Amino acid sequence: MAKDYRQMWESIGVDLEAHDKLLNVLPPTYGQVYMSQENRPEGMEYFDFVISEVHGLRIQELQEHKAAGGKVIGAFCVFVPEEIVRAAGGICVGLCSGVEIGAAKAEKVLPRNICPLIKSFMGFKLGKVCPYFESCDMVVGETTCDGKKKAFEILNDYVPVHMMETPQMKREKDKQLWRSEVQDFLVKVEEFTGSKVTDTSLRQSIKDINGKRRALLRLSELRKNIPTPISGKDCLLIEQIAMYDDVPRFTAQLNALCDELEVRVKEGKGFAEPAAPRIIVTGTPMALPNWKIPHIIETSGAVIVAEELCTGLRYFENLVPEEAENTGQMVEDIASRYLNINCACFTPNEGRMEKLVNLAKEYKADGIIHCSLAFCDPYLVEANRVENILKENDIPMLKIETDYGQEDSGQIKTRVEAFLEMIDKK
Amino acid sequence: MAKDYRQMWESIGVDLEAHDKLLNVLPPTYGQVYMSQENRPEGMEYFDFVISEVHGLRIQELQEHKAAGGKVIGAFCVFVPEEIVRAAGGICVGLCSGVEIGAAKAEKVLPRNICPLIKSFMGFKLGKVCPYFESCDMVVGETTCDGKKKAFEILNDYVPVHMMETPQMKREKDKQLWRSEVQDFLVKVEEFTGSKVTDTSLRQSIKDINGKRRALLRLSELRKNIPTPISGKDCLLIEQIAMYDDVPRFTAQLNALCDELEVRVKEGKGFAEPAAPRIIVTGTPMALPNWKIPHIIETSGAVIVAEELCTGLRYFENLVPEEAENTGQMVEDIASRYLNINCACFTPNEGRMEKLVNLAKEYKADGIIHCSLAFCDPYLVEANRVENILKENDIPMLKIETDYGQEDSGQIKTRVEAFLEMIDKK
Repeated sequence: MAKDYRQMWESIGVDLEAHDKLLNVLPPTYGQVYMSQENRPEGMEYFDFVISEVHGLRIQELQEHKAAGGKVIGAFCVFVPEEIVRAAGGICVGLCSGVEIGAAKAEKVLPRNICPLIKSFMGFKLGKVCPYFESCDMVVGETTCDGKKKAFEILNDYVPVHMMETPQMKREKDKQLWRSEVQDFLVKVEEFTGSKVTDTSLRQSIKDINGKRRALLRLSELRKNIPTPISGKDCLLIEQIAMYDDVPRFTAQLNALCDELEVRVKEGKGFAEPAAPRIIVTGTPMALPNWKIPHIIETSGAVIVAEELCTGLRYFENLVPEEAENTGQMVEDIASRYLNINCACFTPNEGRMEKLVNLAKEYKADGIIHCSLAFCDPYLVEANRVENILKENDIPMLKIETDYGQEDSGQIKTRVEAFLEMIDKK
Repeated sequence: MAKDYRQMWESIGVDLEAHDKLLNVLPPTYGQVYMSQENRPEGMEYFDFVISEVHGLRIQELQEHKAAGGKVIGAFCVFVPEEIVRAAGGICVGLCSGVEIGAAKAEKVLPRNICPLIKSFMGFKLGKVCPYFESCDMVVGETTCDGKKKAFEILNDYVPVHMMETPQMKREKDKQLWRSEVQDFLVKVEEFTGSKVTDTSLRQSIKDINGKRRALLRLSELRKNIPTPISGKDCLLIEQIAMYDDVPRFTAQLNALCDELEVRVKEGKGFAEPAAPRIIVTGTPMALPNWKIPHIIETSGAVIVAEELCTGLRYFENLVPEEAENTGQMVEDIASRYLNINCACFTPNEGRMEKLVNLAKEYKADGIIHCSLAFCDPYLVEANRVENILKENDIPMLKIETDYGQEDSGQIKTRVEAFLEMIDKK
């Protein structure tokens, strides 16, 4: 990092010793996973910089925002409508949960056998290791899975949590429930920030967030080319950063990268050989800094062309209409856009099945790798539906269940290599 | 069993070989767990008989019902309103899921690390081992937990499943959603059975099911006495049988048992010594034939005085009002009664916390044992809330996480004995 932020971290309550341990691990991992890649676009420099300042500059910005009376609202889920937070002058940030940390503390309040993402966020909070978490004035929880739903009750002992009830199905009555949850969230955010959400501020916010989504969709479109102009790992990183970076800056930087990638595409320059197997990853979110499976895949000779993940397409596909005249209609539009997300929390979740088959065609994928965090019932059980539909459509699939540890990396690499070989022979 | 039912089992599609294996295990287990108890009330004879004919006489009754044009509807959850099934002339049965069976088949469609109850019901269905399951014309699923919610999608490949969306919270809008789900269920059941639910039939059905609940509540009341006149294991068995036995017969037999227990109470006769530690068990359902933890507790010198379980109080506490004039009001009353259940699927679930503290007082309990099936996030995470409230109220608590295997029985027994010793010294 460019400067010493220790005083800032201390002032917001970060446990410096535990945080130092994290900082000792992250940069070498990043160097190994990211900086070792050849043939990277120059535009990745900005995102490398963001990561190098991930607990520095961005936290300083949040603190300045708070000092000026602004609020910071944290979330763990793509169902939290950031348009509303932004329209009330708040900053919405995705929270740390992609690394094994504070497990001993977390296991005092959580069962041992629980999703590593949940254990991670509890560990971060109980261990006071995450400056984003410590900057949060409020966290927004949701009912997308049992583990998170119940863990938010415990988290509420440490930071105020507002719960949004994501419905379990997608019928008209579920849409009504969700619309009402989005409306209640708007009222809550207004109360909490002390700022009124107006027609103008919400319309502008919708445009800003759509701008971010359009840039991410532009990046996705470029990956459809053969050879794909950028690695999947770099794209995952961008999708992870999208969740907490400043919105207009991120959008501008990503569009600049896309300009560069367009030139690459015209020149036929790619990240990998044109013949490299093209893989789509699908499953549970890969929260920063969880790059484990993509790193294994792309160091095994394949290239990832799309992420059907919450840290991926689920986060940015589908825009909110920009033509609504009043807040009521905008809330309705926002609710509709979010309920379109193909999360495995829904039963049934046919949209995801159709989406995967279509993605495989659109991105000319040779295979799909289903990655699930351990103990994640929604995705692990739904993997059976995915398996069936992909078999019907003759799309090869590999199922991986893992956590944030590195113990199974060798075994996973062997399985990925065998899968790629099988695809190659097909 | 009194007669040979093999032809009947074969005719409904039961895999006789797999079923034989189950029948070779159950009677000796039952003998060991139940018949070894001393000082049992005579009225238990009926329930012993029911178990001895569990796959015989009762299945024959279901088949006769079906032959006469009736429908059998299966369920795995205390949220399924049996009043409605009964009012349409259907029979509602709780399904087999309390024993490790068909795991290899189940693991072909489910993850390895999933709640044993879910793995069990999938194993029973895929292995065709359960004559109740094979007698079912329809299964009613619900969204109380991720594992079941998603497993029902797979189960629907093998038997028609109707899903009811249990809300995740208990606010007014959740009540509305649930009311609408109960109403939709009524329509579904009418369509499925071809029988109209009338004001008269629903009112009678409410009275019948309330009758069953009153008998179970009467049994519960009797257990408040010191010494308690009956073992917890026997009561659990009765609560398990309540879910699939003929309603008026069960009610009559249980009331006869309660008459006998009242005499016992007057005579000061108990199942255990008056000084035996009194335990309440709470947590996940103990589906038939899962008697593992109660057997350990009661062979360690304690007596279980209440089950704050789905196979326990959650199933029968709170009656449906009997005064409503029309079906619309009855549906509303039914919905309200069911939404009062303190299931860990709700966030928050404060009702369960208050309930546990009150139960400990009412039943003069010396301690509470929290029993959870492995991988059950709702109950395993909520155990933290339970722990806090019991600590505040100075009520000793032991947490056990287990499955249907016997490998950990020794270790659990050691922990239970240490807990009872600690209580004793208190």
